Amino acid sequence: MNIVEYPSKENWPELLARPALSNEGLYDSVSKVLEQVRNEGDSALRRLELQFDKVELQSFQVSEEAFTEAEGLLSEKLKSSIRTAAANIRKFHESQLPALKKIETTPGVFCWQKAIPIQKVGLYIPGGSAPLFSTVLMLAIPAVTAGCPEIILCTPPDREGKANPAILFAARTAGVSRIFTIGGSQAIAAMAYGTESVPKVSKIFGPGNSYVTAAKQLVSIRDVAIDMPAGPSEVAVIADEGADASFIAADLLSQAEHGPDSQVLLFTTSADIISRVQDEVLRQTALLPRQQIAVKALDNSRLILLHDMEEVMAMVNAYAPEHLIIQTADAPTLAGKVLNAGSVFIGEWSPESAGDYASGTNHTLPTSGYAMAYSGVNIDSFLRKTTFQQISREGLGILGPVIETMAAGESLDAHRNAVTIRLARK
Amino acid sequence: MNIVEYPSKENWPELLARPALSNEGLYDSVSKVLEQVRNEGDSALRRLELQFDKVELQSFQVSEEAFTEAEGLLSEKLKSSIRTAAANIRKFHESQLPALKKIETTPGVFCWQKAIPIQKVGLYIPGGSAPLFSTVLMLAIPAVTAGCPEIILCTPPDREGKANPAILFAARTAGVSRIFTIGGSQAIAAMAYGTESVPKVSKIFGPGNSYVTAAKQLVSIRDVAIDMPAGPSEVAVIADEGADASFIAADLLSQAEHGPDSQVLLFTTSADIISRVQDEVLRQTALLPRQQIAVKALDNSRLILLHDMEEVMAMVNAYAPEHLIIQTADAPTLAGKVLNAGSVFIGEWSPESAGDYASGTNHTLPTSGYAMAYSGVNIDSFLRKTTFQQISREGLGILGPVIETMAAGESLDAHRNAVTIRLARK
Repeated sequence: MNIVEYPSKENWPELLARPALSNEGLYDSVSKVLEQVRNEGDSALRRLELQFDKVELQSFQVSEEAFTEAEGLLSEKLKSSIRTAAANIRKFHESQLPALKKIETTPGVFCWQKAIPIQKVGLYIPGGSAPLFSTVLMLAIPAVTAGCPEIILCTPPDREGKANPAILFAARTAGVSRIFTIGGSQAIAAMAYGTESVPKVSKIFGPGNSYVTAAKQLVSIRDVAIDMPAGPSEVAVIADEGADASFIAADLLSQAEHGPDSQVLLFTTSADIISRVQDEVLRQTALLPRQQIAVKALDNSRLILLHDMEEVMAMVNAYAPEHLIIQTADAPTLAGKVLNAGSVFIGEWSPESAGDYASGTNHTLPTSGYAMAYSGVNIDSFLRKTTFQQISREGLGILGPVIETMAAGESLDAHRNAVTIRLARK
Repeated sequence: MNIVEYPSKENWPELLARPALSNEGLYDSVSKVLEQVRNEGDSALRRLELQFDKVELQSFQVSEEAFTEAEGLLSEKLKSSIRTAAANIRKFHESQLPALKKIETTPGVFCWQKAIPIQKVGLYIPGGSAPLFSTVLMLAIPAVTAGCPEIILCTPPDREGKANPAILFAARTAGVSRIFTIGGSQAIAAMAYGTESVPKVSKIFGPGNSYVTAAKQLVSIRDVAIDMPAGPSEVAVIADEGADASFIAADLLSQAEHGPDSQVLLFTTSADIISRVQDEVLRQTALLPRQQIAVKALDNSRLILLHDMEEVMAMVNAYAPEHLIIQTADAPTLAGKVLNAGSVFIGEWSPESAGDYASGTNHTLPTSGYAMAYSGVNIDSFLRKTTFQQISREGLGILGPVIETMAAGESLDAHRNAVTIRLARK
């Protein structure tokens, strides 16, 4: 871990820089995959699944039997934990459903916004070493809560062509319509363009490796909406001298184990905390199964010593972390000063893991500084707020002249005429 | 105009297809402009402004004197109309501000969403023949209402290096921080990357020609968020036999005059309405200054005769129009069946022009079928909904085991340990 003491503001940008990702030829190879699926549909999917996931698939859709089998493979303890997390996630996202407010902006001129669910959404869930069944809940539950009528999910098959059982159980618990065993950029292509088996969707959600991310970026230029640009996961911890170094170390490591390009930062006003956290990180790392990954991520990490909490908040807001954990005596006050962050964890009993799994907040969050412009996934991500207006004849009588004057000012006479012809009606 | 009678569902896709846009070499030439501004900053902007807007600029920022001069050039009638429209737009967008709701998902586990304004936003307003000062209101007023502290605006200069006076007045009325006389893709680059004079922003809004649109798409892949993908404007009108053909014709033409690639569609159950609308369109087109443009757009337009309103709504929802005007006896009922549209105008006294200028709804709307996935610009476009959580020791005691079980299920031991180490604290 790199220790930085009292950096000058000129050095902030380099200190807060994310690890650079090499995209050598990435977009070219992904574009080729997209084109194949777009032009050949299912037959391209079969070929690509054989190539990348090493399995020959006749059909892609997961059968009822597979769901039943999956449920039998999981422990009751895991299933009830998934149900508890699902209930909390549902409760929090239900609270985000917007109310319809009808406004009379001018007498006789009524305007309102109506939240209408996106009709077809597609979710992507990576497979591999760590099956992210928690992400299934984070994407599917808001989609169901928003009222999306068709929710499909793609996830890579194993060598027997099967999806991970916990992913199937979480999807069924959340209420996903259909699941397809398709992985990687070919899955993104299938949902973006549609094939004989996979319906075209209007918006694609979910994490993935650099190929999946590149595919989402490319299809989002023209063909379909995506949740947000994705990058390596990251956490920033703010701590004062009274914080518990072992808690901080555990929180930093829980991010570091995600991948070698994950980034963890500590911002503190206490030199003592920095040395204690270092010791704790070393102690705890030794006990981790994924310690190789964590150690690599720690190379990108920084423990930053600053003069006061005002400077801390300025630097944290300049970084715009995906996750921000505040372990200080005045944590709620500092939380009120957050301008740029994906999700904020207040106080020593609020570890990031809580939001990653079960507290109810969403764990699909903006990385790489995108928190400056993007929200994490929330109920809005699955809705469109369509505007409606209903104007009475009297209302148009009042507002009409304003519209005519402005249309004339923009030299759009047909726009003006649409009002003039109505006002002239006897 | 093309008349289509009782098309079979197989033909819907071709009938609802948008005019194809040729992008020959567009992205390459735009990429070159982006690179120049990214590498050379202001000096590239000066060179490109001379090349594209034919003006030599020393500084780009509009001076106080220029604002005062602009105000003097406008009629009181236009200024008061702009103020009235601004008030309505403000009133409607204020009503969209979300309330903070704190939820206790599990005893001791508190979660909430806080709407935080995007700190730096950039607006682009095209110049040219029709100066879109109304779009200044549509973008800047929600930005100010959301609380964005820094709002900059770029708009092309005329040959004397001046911005359009109505654009300056609207920007000042709305509360824009600073205006820069920079146009085209170089303006998008300046706001995406920042230069010596122009601050880098986090999100870029606004319409533009194909170069501006391509520039927004390219910078949005990595560097900055954008409002939405933009395409040619379009309107769909639903009418029954009782509708007023002259109103319908005026509404169709108000969209057709936007540009030769605009698209206007009429969906009706009455053959009689189709012939009457045709006559009215011919009559009214003859009176339009911009009739050449309108005539070209009418070539892309269709008058579609269908069996019943159920079929009409199905086809309209398959098209997902930017604007939808419903001129039928049961307009409010049909409005309730809209699934995909940008903005809906209910009844014969609600012309699109009202929403384009002054009723209060936003006119920056999803085109090209993007209404299936995107909302128009609204208060959310300028906010991030950041999640916060505060968990008590007791709360973590209840939820902790669920988190540990799920983390173990995903083989993320450090995630589990962040809870275990806390629960173990005596």
